[in-house]
Amino acid sequence: MHSKFNITVPDQGLAAALQNKIDRKTKPLGALGQLEAAAKTIGLIQKSLTPQLKQPQMLVFAGDHGAAKAGVSAFPQEVSWQMVENFLAGGAAINVFARQNGMALSVVDAGVAHDFGRRPQLIDAKVAKGTANYLEEPAMTVAQCEAAIASGAEIVRGLAAGGCNVVGFGEMGIGNTAAASLITHCLTGISLAECIGRGSGLDDVGLSRKQALLDQALTRYRANGGGDAPLAVLAEFGGFEIAMMVGAMLAAAEAGMVLLIDGFIVSSATLVAARLFPALTHYCVFCHHSVEPGHVAVLRALGAKPLLDLGLRLGEGTGAALAYPLVQASVNFLNQMASFESAGVADKV
Amino acid sequence: MHSKFNITVPDQGLAAALQNKIDRKTKPLGALGQLEAAAKTIGLIQKSLTPQLKQPQMLVFAGDHGAAKAGVSAFPQEVSWQMVENFLAGGAAINVFARQNGMALSVVDAGVAHDFGRRPQLIDAKVAKGTANYLEEPAMTVAQCEAAIASGAEIVRGLAAGGCNVVGFGEMGIGNTAAASLITHCLTGISLAECIGRGSGLDDVGLSRKQALLDQALTRYRANGGGDAPLAVLAEFGGFEIAMMVGAMLAAAEAGMVLLIDGFIVSSATLVAARLFPALTHYCVFCHHSVEPGHVAVLRALGAKPLLDLGLRLGEGTGAALAYPLVQASVNFLNQMASFESAGVADKV
Repeated sequence: MHSKFNITVPDQGLAAALQNKIDRKTKPLGALGQLEAAAKTIGLIQKSLTPQLKQPQMLVFAGDHGAAKAGVSAFPQEVSWQMVENFLAGGAAINVFARQNGMALSVVDAGVAHDFGRRPQLIDAKVAKGTANYLEEPAMTVAQCEAAIASGAEIVRGLAAGGCNVVGFGEMGIGNTAAASLITHCLTGISLAECIGRGSGLDDVGLSRKQALLDQALTRYRANGGGDAPLAVLAEFGGFEIAMMVGAMLAAAEAGMVLLIDGFIVSSATLVAARLFPALTHYCVFCHHSVEPGHVAVLRALGAKPLLDLGLRLGEGTGAALAYPLVQASVNFLNQMASFESAGVADKV
Repeated sequence: MHSKFNITVPDQGLAAALQNKIDRKTKPLGALGQLEAAAKTIGLIQKSLTPQLKQPQMLVFAGDHGAAKAGVSAFPQEVSWQMVENFLAGGAAINVFARQNGMALSVVDAGVAHDFGRRPQLIDAKVAKGTANYLEEPAMTVAQCEAAIASGAEIVRGLAAGGCNVVGFGEMGIGNTAAASLITHCLTGISLAECIGRGSGLDDVGLSRKQALLDQALTRYRANGGGDAPLAVLAEFGGFEIAMMVGAMLAAAEAGMVLLIDGFIVSSATLVAARLFPALTHYCVFCHHSVEPGHVAVLRALGAKPLLDLGLRLGEGTGAALAYPLVQASVNFLNQMASFESAGVADKV
């Protein structure tokens, strides 16, 4: 695994020049807040004082979860494939927001329990028709996990080769907040209870059931000697869409792309990737702060402060697509704003 | 004054139908958070289940403050006109963000201490070359205040007549956080100290001086029998750009436009307008949460929860321009997303 990716912290040689360029813009020092931090991040990634975002691409990874049938979600499992059809028809929230903000959109079938056939905008990378049920056995084999990572990496390398340098991550998979909760608990040590939320809308009874089921899954894993190694945890609790995002993120960072990180499930993949290659976070722009409590745990573990906090809990990459104009704005102010000198504006007294 | 505007709470007849349309979209209930609230607000304003944002316009109101020379700002007063020149040349942050997000931009000279001559994109509505110094006398006469309000209203009525139905408010004026602090204190009763911040970047010494000067201004006002009537407070502490925004906002609400409210100074104008016509807030989308502490006081008084919280403290309307894609997204999801029925997606179990 480790030998497959070469991810280093971006060279900091331009840091001072970027900060100076930001500070000489016609505005009070620091007055653009988080946009200034994003501009600096992107300038360092691209090793440029005039970074450019090219061919922005949303990738929505979809997969099914064996545990979904045990009742960890408010929605039935077939909603996974039905929502993929909705994506392909252009009718979901992520379609609306990606279209509005000029991002291309592809859906990746990482392991949905459905046959879609060949379809425009659908990338067939199906590992299997859904993971196994982690209440009874590991969600995937080590070989499946590695195949998912490799497929994700391959998809992103294709995008990079075509000139894309900014990629947004989204997901769809009934039951995947449960998987993300288990992964987050194992990789951060934050209590499982703090990592579990209502997902797509469980009521109190449903939330209690989800908590009990995930406790049971964790107990089984620990009883079998399961530890906290990132790939072991990923294979144990899945899903295929999360594993494929791990590979996609690692390849994107390796290629020097800007990674737009969505909510809880996407961030759980980022957490796995960052545990494998800590330099990965230097390529990430965290886009939104989910209502899902486990997301707070991941963000804390990664030291991330997202751009948006709109009470979103939809997934699909919607937070990333909605934040993209802010990311574009950070690059635009850096490239287009006048300086005190060029505009003939007096600086602070 | 009151007779000049007719502002009523939007008819709530469509509220249930709008909520139902939002709830039937292919997403968990409430999963788009604040975008759902914005969609409902705009649908009610336009009395439509398919609202449209047309000819989005940023108006940046500029004015000078007599008190600026007393040292209430980190920047010298001439920065007001120099920044207006920067706006007209297209080099300021608001130019970059309005351009990126497809908003037209006009600058309104409400009372800058400078002669600009006739210029494209500049609306000459100058009341006077800066307000008087409220440390010594009222910033403006009642007649000047009324003239500013009337001019602001006239500008917006012209936009409405041309088909614009969404207007963003921005401002420029060295010293205007000080005016906003005094207005906010008088209209909310929140302590003056809590309403004062560093503005464009005062250090500790500068902040102490600003606090002492504003205390002095308030003491003079109270000693002369000054009360808390909104227009009296507005005339006493200015500025012309704030008064003109009050009129512009009232006319915009009267015309059924969507008002995009920026940071502290713009919000202080909203506070004045809302104290005159409480229904005004139903037409407002609060766009960003400023770092300036007085803004917290205004937002609390108005019960507003802005879309963005990015650590911005630049003014110019930058928060409104940056939030505009989110406002557009709220309308777009309402108009473009599929419903569970139309997409053939199963609803919650």
